[in-house]
Amino acid sequence: MPRSTNSQREMVDGLPLFDHHCHGVIEYDLSAAEFESLISESSRPAAPGTTRFDSQIGVQVLSQCAPVLGAERFCSPTAYLDARAALGADEVDRRLLKAARLTTLGVDTGHAAGLITGPERLGELAGATAHEVVRLESLAEGVAHTMRAEENPLPPSRDNAALFLQKLEDPLDMRLARAIGVKSIAAYRYGLDFLAARPATDEVIAAAVEFLSQPATMRLDDPVLIRHLLWLAIDRKQVIQLHIGYGDDDVDLHRCNPLLLTELLRTTRDTGARFALLHCYPFVREAGYLADVYEHVYFDVGLAINYTGSHSPRVIAESLELAPFGKILFSTDAFGLPELYFVGAQLFRRGLAEVLDYYQREWGWPDHYCRKVAELMCYDNAARLYGVDDRKN
Amino acid sequence: MPRSTNSQREMVDGLPLFDHHCHGVIEYDLSAAEFESLISESSRPAAPGTTRFDSQIGVQVLSQCAPVLGAERFCSPTAYLDARAALGADEVDRRLLKAARLTTLGVDTGHAAGLITGPERLGELAGATAHEVVRLESLAEGVAHTMRAEENPLPPSRDNAALFLQKLEDPLDMRLARAIGVKSIAAYRYGLDFLAARPATDEVIAAAVEFLSQPATMRLDDPVLIRHLLWLAIDRKQVIQLHIGYGDDDVDLHRCNPLLLTELLRTTRDTGARFALLHCYPFVREAGYLADVYEHVYFDVGLAINYTGSHSPRVIAESLELAPFGKILFSTDAFGLPELYFVGAQLFRRGLAEVLDYYQREWGWPDHYCRKVAELMCYDNAARLYGVDDRKN
Amino acid sequence: MPRSTNSQREMVDGLPLFDHHCHGVIEYDLSAAEFESLISESSRPAAPGTTRFDSQIGVQVLSQCAPVLGAERFCSPTAYLDARAALGADEVDRRLLKAARLTTLGVDTGHAAGLITGPERLGELAGATAHEVVRLESLAEGVAHTMRAEENPLPPSRDNAALFLQKLEDPLDMRLARAIGVKSIAAYRYGLDFLAARPATDEVIAAAVEFLSQPATMRLDDPVLIRHLLWLAIDRKQVIQLHIGYGDDDVDLHRCNPLLLTELLRTTRDTGARFALLHCYPFVREAGYLADVYEHVYFDVGLAINYTGSHSPRVIAESLELAPFGKILFSTDAFGLPELYFVGAQLFRRGLAEVLDYYQREWGWPDHYCRKVAELMCYDNAARLYGVDDRKN
Repeated sequence: MPRSTNSQREMVDGLPLFDHHCHGVIEYDLSAAEFESLISESSRPAAPGTTRFDSQIGVQVLSQCAPVLGAERFCSPTAYLDARAALGADEVDRRLLKAARLTTLGVDTGHAAGLITGPERLGELAGATAHEVVRLESLAEGVAHTMRAEENPLPPSRDNAALFLQKLEDPLDMRLARAIGVKSIAAYRYGLDFLAARPATDEVIAAAVEFLSQPATMRLDDPVLIRHLLWLAIDRKQVIQLHIGYGDDDVDLHRCNPLLLTELLRTTRDTGARFALLHCYPFVREAGYLADVYEHVYFDVGLAINYTGSHSPRVIAESLELAPFGKILFSTDAFGLPELYFVGAQLFRRGLAEVLDYYQREWGWPDHYCRKVAELMCYDNAARLYGVDDRKN
Repeated sequence: MPRSTNSQREMVDGLPLFDHHCHGVIEYDLSAAEFESLISESSRPAAPGTTRFDSQIGVQVLSQCAPVLGAERFCSPTAYLDARAALGADEVDRRLLKAARLTTLGVDTGHAAGLITGPERLGELAGATAHEVVRLESLAEGVAHTMRAEENPLPPSRDNAALFLQKLEDPLDMRLARAIGVKSIAAYRYGLDFLAARPATDEVIAAAVEFLSQPATMRLDDPVLIRHLLWLAIDRKQVIQLHIGYGDDDVDLHRCNPLLLTELLRTTRDTGARFALLHCYPFVREAGYLADVYEHVYFDVGLAINYTGSHSPRVIAESLELAPFGKILFSTDAFGLPELYFVGAQLFRRGLAEVLDYYQREWGWPDHYCRKVAELMCYDNAARLYGVDDRKN
Repeated sequence: MPRSTNSQREMVDGLPLFDHHCHGVIEYDLSAAEFESLISESSRPAAPGTTRFDSQIGVQVLSQCAPVLGAERFCSPTAYLDARAALGADEVDRRLLKAARLTTLGVDTGHAAGLITGPERLGELAGATAHEVVRLESLAEGVAHTMRAEENPLPPSRDNAALFLQKLEDPLDMRLARAIGVKSIAAYRYGLDFLAARPATDEVIAAAVEFLSQPATMRLDDPVLIRHLLWLAIDRKQVIQLHIGYGDDDVDLHRCNPLLLTELLRTTRDTGARFALLHCYPFVREAGYLADVYEHVYFDVGLAINYTGSHSPRVIAESLELAPFGKILFSTDAFGLPELYFVGAQLFRRGLAEVLDYYQREWGWPDHYCRKVAELMCYDNAARLYGVDDRKN
């Protein structure tokens, strides 16, 4: 990348990186259409007459990833996809994941688990240590599926509802024995404008009865059940990752402003639970405010970094406006494509180095303080939050 | 303009420009007070002790337009208005409209049509090809006025309501035979928080009865009628321009966030209709998100460009954060003053060139790709969307 | 500060500054924990493993204030606090307040009055002329406390309510004889989504009965009473300062968007009252819009300047996007620490100079116009708005 070298880039490049929120990678060869669909949050193909490559993320792939795969920088989409096909999925995955130079991964295992690798395999491909993050809604849906598999049709009685609620806790506790935290997609399933309070048992039972009476899809989108799951995690003093803001087109973005969580955050200050707000675009300043005033709130601008591409240094700079430096995390939110881990990591390194370079050049920050803030954001904050440190000494 | 030359400015300057949303120009001489009122979205004079010239748009007029009229760059407001008066409205219109170098115009004919030129005359003055954009609310109000002119008082009966609704469709179809799309000011008349669904016939009739019972002003602000008009346009697979965000002071800006349209956009994906979100300030990032995830959504940051002036390069840069490059349009939203077409076009050219120069300088974009993105935003996207191409070969 | 010199810095540095909204300073020696709590809007200590010094404001203190106290630029927090302790509160206050070079102060006397200096003493320490700004909610709470002190328990009757409402007006008028305006913290006590209309007498009486029946804390958070207080100020054609946006963690930030005031602003255009929106982060663009379209609206980005530190030039630039230059004010919102006046003033000078330097370098603004805009924002706008001018000729 031209001009990517600045006074801080080398320092940042040398630091280990803790990607606290990503998904698995796809291990099979992709068609052009499949590839395009994975460099967009839309559920539909690009508009007629346009291509997904004509976008910030598309440009990043063609300019940054192409050389890693032996193609020419800024080659055509066709040339890029040809290079990809010639190497095969496994080699592409290995090259790009290695090039991302990630040390620790927090892997959300709750989405499309059948299509992508699990944490262990991802860690192996990336040369990193991978830790699971348990998606609450998927876990609950899995429990319901199992119950139905055992008894079909499953009568949606209060007894079965109570059984369902009881059966949630064992697998949750079992997985939390190794996982580093939980994830909720309340934003997708309902919005962030749910009530903050722990729901009453009767409400939860009634909601579970309703949920169990659904047809086979078993999509958990009831706000009472979502709250119940969140409070299970709060009671366990977990780090709770929350999808915030921008994402797939089934989100109602105006109901995903993190400020809607204010009452929940106020209520949970003294519980031991902590919250990691994910992505947060375009609510970056709002997330920074919450991380400033609530001591148990952390956030990242992952996903937004990849999709704003050349403008990601500005997004990263905004994340440093109000938030204490000890509360900002790094993630790629990569899913499926190894390109997304690599681009996400490189853009974060570059954007962070640019901001620090600005601080030094314009505000006189000494080297040691630039380094300290970089260490916090690249690894230390996540290590402290999750109680995990995989760095070699 | 100092420093306006950069590696991309000459290239951008050479491209044809499709201003997909503007209004007519005033052809009579203006008083100082009239001129000031036209460089602001406020319905009131400037605060005591201040002048509208002390603003971003004021500075643009005094610095950019003055030399076109033979006045000194950064002259005083008085000197500027004197130069304007000495030349006369016709010469001022011609000079500034020509200097804007616009190739194609989409002209909203629904606001203050008596004060300003129609599309044909505007095209003539500007040396451009002008196409009409039909404002839905004005068309409906016109039909009601005609009915009342024929029978006064007009009994607000269900029969008259049905007649009114039926009489809407003929002139709409007739004008759409030549027009390139429609425009709705739902944002002004109600807000964007209307229901998405097509309204039931009975609801529409009842709303029409109510509307026809109004006194002479016949201001169409009923959300059911607004939805009816929008669905007429959706059924006709039109490009629907929607006012979004910032504008005159009769807007409730917090009800003009384009995210409030999410359900309407979701519902209309497969109808053939497309949406062009206009202005979008300060909801630029939100508009970019919608253009990214919804294949039938396009947007511009016109109006905001003029009124943010020296800061418009930042607003233009933000419009390129998330949105695919094939979904971003150009407009001036100019009304009345020829200055607004000229400044709007010049600021867009400069801001776009600056962003592209940044991409090349900092991210290595090759010339051909800078040119491609510029062509998309200056003309190709609008030509593809509206099915209109007036470029000479 | 490195690079702080630019073509406009010297000019801006030479201008008097009108800090239209600040609080008193603390005159006693502070513990480390007290100091940390005063460089944050949070009501809690920093998260475990972090310090409030690792933040934008922390860096400003260590880099800008340290030399004023004889410590090394970018010293450690401990070294800074040691230097502070060695000098003693009085000397620290004097040095930093003098270094802020403020000419006129508008002092909100309604918060924690027992801990901090009053206006007169603050003015003395700062070498500035200080004027009171009367906080409406505190005044009303004070009246209620006095009534209860005279008769305890105070029967919450309609008679006492009427008496309470009547007793508000005398001290208000008395203090307004000298004060330059009022302040309301409706944002903290309720949110900005209150009804715009003047409340009916019966409603107000009922709300006052309820308020007087409260236990000893007497926290005025009823929206009807808040509106009553605002309308008392509107009737008196006051400048009404309103807390907007970011602040302590008892604010619901999503209910503090200034756009929620739209109806109130529309309703009060012709009353003679004027509104000064304070802070406005992250709603800077929204505030600029309101200042543009409503002739009686002014705003500042104080508080946000201190807390965004190295990024404050961007925040200041955003405040100049849409707003007329004659409507933008300066404040520090400093409370307690003399550091906050000094840093707030220095950051504003620097950010303003940077924006003006950009205008000159990139857009050709002549020196005289840069100076004019600087004078407006530093002093003239506030002087015109408040009818106060303390500049020596």
